[in-house]
Amino acid sequence: MAEEVLIIGLGLIGGSLGLALQGSPLVKRITGLDKSAAAVEQAIKIGAIDASPPLEEAVARAEIIFLCSPMAAYPQILRDILPLVRPGAVLTDVGSTKTEVAALFTELPAHVFGIGGHPMAGAETAGIQGADRYLFENAVYILTPAEDTPRSVLRRLSRLVETTGAKVQVMSAAIHDQAVARISHVPHLAAAALLNVTKADPTVLMMAAGGFRDTTRVASGDPALWQDIIFSNARYISSELQKLIEELGHMKKALEQNDRGALLAMLEQASALRAQIPAWQRSLMGSCSDVICIVPDQPGVIGQLGNILGSCQVNIMDLEILRIREGDGGTIRISVPDEQSARRAVEALGEEHIKAWTK
Amino acid sequence: MAEEVLIIGLGLIGGSLGLALQGSPLVKRITGLDKSAAAVEQAIKIGAIDASPPLEEAVARAEIIFLCSPMAAYPQILRDILPLVRPGAVLTDVGSTKTEVAALFTELPAHVFGIGGHPMAGAETAGIQGADRYLFENAVYILTPAEDTPRSVLRRLSRLVETTGAKVQVMSAAIHDQAVARISHVPHLAAAALLNVTKADPTVLMMAAGGFRDTTRVASGDPALWQDIIFSNARYISSELQKLIEELGHMKKALEQNDRGALLAMLEQASALRAQIPAWQRSLMGSCSDVICIVPDQPGVIGQLGNILGSCQVNIMDLEILRIREGDGGTIRISVPDEQSARRAVEALGEEHIKAWTK
Repeated sequence: MAEEVLIIGLGLIGGSLGLALQGSPLVKRITGLDKSAAAVEQAIKIGAIDASPPLEEAVARAEIIFLCSPMAAYPQILRDILPLVRPGAVLTDVGSTKTEVAALFTELPAHVFGIGGHPMAGAETAGIQGADRYLFENAVYILTPAEDTPRSVLRRLSRLVETTGAKVQVMSAAIHDQAVARISHVPHLAAAALLNVTKADPTVLMMAAGGFRDTTRVASGDPALWQDIIFSNARYISSELQKLIEELGHMKKALEQNDRGALLAMLEQASALRAQIPAWQRSLMGSCSDVICIVPDQPGVIGQLGNILGSCQVNIMDLEILRIREGDGGTIRISVPDEQSARRAVEALGEEHIKAWTK
Repeated sequence: MAEEVLIIGLGLIGGSLGLALQGSPLVKRITGLDKSAAAVEQAIKIGAIDASPPLEEAVARAEIIFLCSPMAAYPQILRDILPLVRPGAVLTDVGSTKTEVAALFTELPAHVFGIGGHPMAGAETAGIQGADRYLFENAVYILTPAEDTPRSVLRRLSRLVETTGAKVQVMSAAIHDQAVARISHVPHLAAAALLNVTKADPTVLMMAAGGFRDTTRVASGDPALWQDIIFSNARYISSELQKLIEELGHMKKALEQNDRGALLAMLEQASALRAQIPAWQRSLMGSCSDVICIVPDQPGVIGQLGNILGSCQVNIMDLEILRIREGDGGTIRISVPDEQSARRAVEALGEEHIKAWTK
């Protein structure tokens, strides 16, 4: 059942996909194509692909083809490869919106199965240089089959994708695009708007504490890339933006009418919804408990903490330095798999005279 | 020049302030008062205060008084303490908005100096249980003197506050309140609104990746507390909300008119502004470089990383686990003080066969 996989476009996502699929029992061989010879060379060097044969050969042999190029290049790539694709092959992509791709895929010949895809995983570095075999680990990976996609074909792709560590969710292209408008595109615009209304006032920027940095983090994304994403989903975004503007209008009205109850209800609803998100993430990550500790000195203290927890067999799932005073100490949050591990960690840290408590 | 400090209200901020001021050369003794006997007992136990004498004695001896209670309690506390305050004492507070406090302070007797204060530091735990001597470390701490506050008195308070590790900034109460409307209160409302327009759709919440969690993190704050903060600054928030609504309207118009240039300009402005925030933070933290590394196995790997960096004398300023596969490995970002340390770290990690690169 192992298949020949072709990745077209060897950037961050294509490269990471290759690395993540290497060693999968469902993969026989991974080939890759990119218009940049340097990207191809690097992809082979890091083991993201096994080979880069000429386009004709690569396409003719491929059983699963991942389009990992910018979406604007899809029409040309389809013109180049469709005459060569073997019957029964699956063509999928990794673009951020799916309605336009679904429309393109309706024009595939009957013997080629088109299934849209969207791995919801970002990264801190663009290009093959940032390729990371763990990029898809625990990430939600949406597949958007057409109405006439055979279930067995969807299952074939779904199983392959799951060997990257991703969690596959299946939905229609329309539902996907409305959902990403709400969860990604409108929040991106809101973050940008919050920055723009500061008018670059240095007093305001100087006061930006952790909250504002968190809220506006997404707005540091590449403007040209986001412009493309946003215009590819303009219809849903426009309607979701309108809902956001109306909700902000309700808040403003509550403020001006001194209607404390109405504002409180809106804040309570939001806080309750926010609490549901970590629950979802935890269900993906396995449950998690937090240990907070105050450590006395630097450097080497992170190593010491890691050693103490390692020595009592507690895995560190996450570690965050909350506050730090150079040369003196700081406050650190450590996430561990469960409450029992947290208690073991607190005890072990206490024995080493490190103040620690569970959260 | 060491002074007798009184902290009224021994919660998270009051307790942390006590811990942070212990050992300051500008502090002779720290007393504390709270209506909860348990909070007083805990504050003494952890060393946040030296003693808790009766109110009459504590107030009569205090040279600097920090009001760390909820703002709603200020009027009653002032009625209780003002007849007892010694001439020349400084009265300051830690509330989130400053115009109302400034109005209260205009009624102080001429021999008591009122200076508003706002440490821009949050924490993950409320109450004295979360007290942390590093809470103010590198945090911006705003002081809002009155027009007639003598410079020497402002300097006296400012120097004391700086011994907590905070960076003092002085401005008027009005400028402070407009700035926090922009940087904190309106972003909080926007995060709440973004959550509310998801309508609790489980598909949407399931797809919430890191970006949405970051953008909406602040909205998990206590709704009742935020209701109070927001109504204490209603006038500025209402006007800043209007600006946000207008900016979102401009974006919607650009989308509907397919004006790609206008949207790109807005995204570029936001991205440039966002890039200025870490610069401000870096100027507070000292410069920082990032090392990304892919680690092969767990547990104990954090300890191993810490030991490798410790052995080449590189301080870890921050450490973030970007992705993790349990029992296999993960991708970790480590912040170190400068580029030279980053290069040393990459080299040392490479010698231990850990793939690492600077960002």
